[in-house]
Amino acid sequence: MKILVSNDDGISSGGILALERALQKLGDVYTVAPDRPQSSMSHALTLHRPLRVEEISPRHYAVDGTPTDCVKLALTGLLTVKPDLVVSGINHGPNLGDDIIYSGTVSAAIEGALLGIPSIAVSLVSFKDFIFDAAAEFTVALVSQILQITLPPSTLFNVNVPAIPKQEIKGWKLTRQGKRHYSEKIVERVDPRGRKYYWIGGDDLGFAHDNGTDCMAVHEGFVSVTPLQADLTNYRFLQECRSMVIPWP
Amino acid sequence: MKILVSNDDGISSGGILALERALQKLGDVYTVAPDRPQSSMSHALTLHRPLRVEEISPRHYAVDGTPTDCVKLALTGLLTVKPDLVVSGINHGPNLGDDIIYSGTVSAAIEGALLGIPSIAVSLVSFKDFIFDAAAEFTVALVSQILQITLPPSTLFNVNVPAIPKQEIKGWKLTRQGKRHYSEKIVERVDPRGRKYYWIGGDDLGFAHDNGTDCMAVHEGFVSVTPLQADLTNYRFLQECRSMVIPWP
Repeated sequence: MKILVSNDDGISSGGILALERALQKLGDVYTVAPDRPQSSMSHALTLHRPLRVEEISPRHYAVDGTPTDCVKLALTGLLTVKPDLVVSGINHGPNLGDDIIYSGTVSAAIEGALLGIPSIAVSLVSFKDFIFDAAAEFTVALVSQILQITLPPSTLFNVNVPAIPKQEIKGWKLTRQGKRHYSEKIVERVDPRGRKYYWIGGDDLGFAHDNGTDCMAVHEGFVSVTPLQADLTNYRFLQECRSMVIPWP
Repeated sequence: MKILVSNDDGISSGGILALERALQKLGDVYTVAPDRPQSSMSHALTLHRPLRVEEISPRHYAVDGTPTDCVKLALTGLLTVKPDLVVSGINHGPNLGDDIIYSGTVSAAIEGALLGIPSIAVSLVSFKDFIFDAAAEFTVALVSQILQITLPPSTLFNVNVPAIPKQEIKGWKLTRQGKRHYSEKIVERVDPRGRKYYWIGGDDLGFAHDNGTDCMAVHEGFVSVTPLQADLTNYRFLQECRSMVIPWP
């Protein structure tokens, strides 16, 4: 089996190294990842400038672009092999609820799915003292399952692992995307030259305690596994809109 | 009524000027938009550095960040008023099918929706000779309708207008996100210093001719109106996954 690994924390991060090590048990691992941190880059794609690629060791490529650039490059010409699987992570921090739409790690897996390869994003729900063992082990277990099923078009799995000792993790739950709450206040300050600047804030204020969500599963000590898709249509609301009248032209 | 306008082509683009002019008939327009082109920036959010804001004229702010940054800043502290509506566009080019997940214009509207404001993204399906009149007029007509209904959480409208004379447009259709086909080949070249570089390609190879999609509606000469959401869960597949067994721990 051939596996493409990427992430958004950069090619030297602890999370990607733990992931590579674990997946090497399953097959040949190819890493194509950003040369520096690219958190919160979402699905940004670099079209207006060329990309540089450095082969830093065999099957190990650093790209001066976004996570989506890395996966796009890898699957459309950089690699001479076609991977059977794309795994993105292990992210240093959660990708739960609204985080998903901002996440470079999840977007790398979305790009894999858009290009027709079974894809997984994996995140460790912690902000310090990252111990990736349980997340890496769970990913290996999930991969063996995923390769036995047929995924719908443009569909991927988003995995979040609680940062507690493995023996305390209660198991895993199939979940939907939840809702996180952030304090949205921006920070307004004055720089050393007397000019104003703004910094986007976002203190973690918890999450909506809805059963069945990724947030709730992790809160209860389970690994969350959420099937995501790149189709953003709100199908339920689409039906409601059928009665809409727009007086035009 | 107070309306926030943004886009991804930058604050000086023709599309945003046409949109502002049209929306001024409906209320007070506040523009917070990138100071330079930010196409294909998706939902990228700038967290690792401060943002600069320049008030280039009254109610007109240029930001050195992404479309998502602009809307986040505007709604969380930069503006002293709370807008009733966010409109992003008019995009210079289509945002149909898979384009949606890469689009900065759509993401600006997604950010508005995430922050609880009714939001619309508008795009003109052309690559040259941009005439925004019909798109601007349709947006005004759509706004009057949208403000009469209650949108579900994190839901927005994505509008694509064919680039044909207004009298040839057949009307509008309620649609779902379609599937575009791109040639995914990357361009590999050598720079003037003899070093290799890569450029992401993507020739337009048409789209899947599925009825009910945004791509198909525009192809047939209709304006497409697609309700989108920020929830990426694949609910149908979630049900299928209930039988999944993962041997862990």
